Amino acid sequence: MVFQSSTYGKVLVLDGVIQLTERDECAYQEMISHLPLCSIPNPKKVLVIGGGDGGVLREVARHSSVEHIDICEIDEMVVTVSKEFFPEVAVGYDDPRVNLLIGDGVAFLKAAPEGSYDAVIVDSSDPIGPAKELFEKPFFESVARALRPGGVVCTQAESIWLHMHIIEDIVSNCRDIFKGSVNYAWTTVPTYPSGVIGFMLCSTDGPTVDFKHPVNPIDKAEDNGTEKRPLKFYNAEIHSAAFCLPSFAKRVIEPKANSS
Amino acid sequence: MVFQSSTYGKVLVLDGVIQLTERDECAYQEMISHLPLCSIPNPKKVLVIGGGDGGVLREVARHSSVEHIDICEIDEMVVTVSKEFFPEVAVGYDDPRVNLLIGDGVAFLKAAPEGSYDAVIVDSSDPIGPAKELFEKPFFESVARALRPGGVVCTQAESIWLHMHIIEDIVSNCRDIFKGSVNYAWTTVPTYPSGVIGFMLCSTDGPTVDFKHPVNPIDKAEDNGTEKRPLKFYNAEIHSAAFCLPSFAKRVIEPKANSS
Repeated sequence: MVFQSSTYGKVLVLDGVIQLTERDECAYQEMISHLPLCSIPNPKKVLVIGGGDGGVLREVARHSSVEHIDICEIDEMVVTVSKEFFPEVAVGYDDPRVNLLIGDGVAFLKAAPEGSYDAVIVDSSDPIGPAKELFEKPFFESVARALRPGGVVCTQAESIWLHMHIIEDIVSNCRDIFKGSVNYAWTTVPTYPSGVIGFMLCSTDGPTVDFKHPVNPIDKAEDNGTEKRPLKFYNAEIHSAAFCLPSFAKRVIEPKANSS
Repeated sequence: MVFQSSTYGKVLVLDGVIQLTERDECAYQEMISHLPLCSIPNPKKVLVIGGGDGGVLREVARHSSVEHIDICEIDEMVVTVSKEFFPEVAVGYDDPRVNLLIGDGVAFLKAAPEGSYDAVIVDSSDPIGPAKELFEKPFFESVARALRPGGVVCTQAESIWLHMHIIEDIVSNCRDIFKGSVNYAWTTVPTYPSGVIGFMLCSTDGPTVDFKHPVNPIDKAEDNGTEKRPLKFYNAEIHSAAFCLPSFAKRVIEPKANSS
């Protein structure tokens, strides 16, 4: 469903759940994309699972080092509807580096060649529903296999206010699978339940990735004479701040670090 | 109005606007109290304007350096209702350092002796309505006069997603009045409009206050053998992170610093 709201612009709804609004989509799309891509030097090959609206593509395309972007979306209608009603989001598809595949992300990753991506971004719907598998161990194993050593994944990971039990399971799964670093970050998205959304950021065994201190700044891209719209939400400070958790969440997610 | 909600516990509503819920009041009360009090060494005398529910008192009382807490609340029924329905919030009134005055905060501050407080916390409702005066220059002038040199004020300051024009005016007023530092911070409160709430943090001319780097940690208070409930939300990292603004807000609030 697409509808026009009185104060948040047009709204995209899937299975009864708000996916994006014109007013606040910037926070989600910019954070889920730049948290991983600004954490590694020179990302070249990126895979997006889900994200059929094109907003993540729009953000990934800001990175001039990126040479190729695969996107695997299961629901072609999301792509069609986004192109018709959300041109400022679907603009991501205009980039010539984008290769769209309609299909099941789980199957796609199983078949993907080993070590082929610098970054995987999982822009999924909630774990209760069709995206359930995208939060389970076999999927994370496929992601880890498809990443190069020291490659990174960023997955949508629910709300610290509402879903701490789910988050605890996701963190535990990720700690088992990803042998680099495993971190939780969050940001504000007013139209998502409780007004926040979280992200799991993990890296595979290999060159160390310190997600909390981005090494690949993009803030200045808007000054580079490009014609892209400036970043609305993301900057280097908010990148680092996103990893600072309220105490109630920190006790569950980072129990060992809880003394600070 | 007080009602029992299905997932956020009991809810306190004033003039049709949610003031607090049992589930998420910790974020607001802890942040509006500890952002100012952890930014100065040894706060002793504190004034709370509004805050009749007692939650800010509960948090201020965690600071063992504090010797006296005045609270000026205009609406006695808020105090009565909070004591009846929200005992874990109204517990703040049990502290012997608390001195409750029922009256108009604007008049109280005008009559307050000069330089008498280390910190003033303005826990007000929205600027459209009865609390309008608490966002205007004459009120800020009274606050500045009532603070000691290098004293601090923290005022509720609306949502970056919804009220940037109001915030721009508040920031401008504060820059005119407070000759120390003037900063904007924000945090997540799911049941407030857009799911976030902001705070203005200002200091008067005198010893420098660097709000972004707290000098008076309270995190460890919960280990001190006190019987108080542990902090649910606030910690030193989330204190500093609260001052990191999304780019769209930074361009308005910190235009000169926008190059970083």
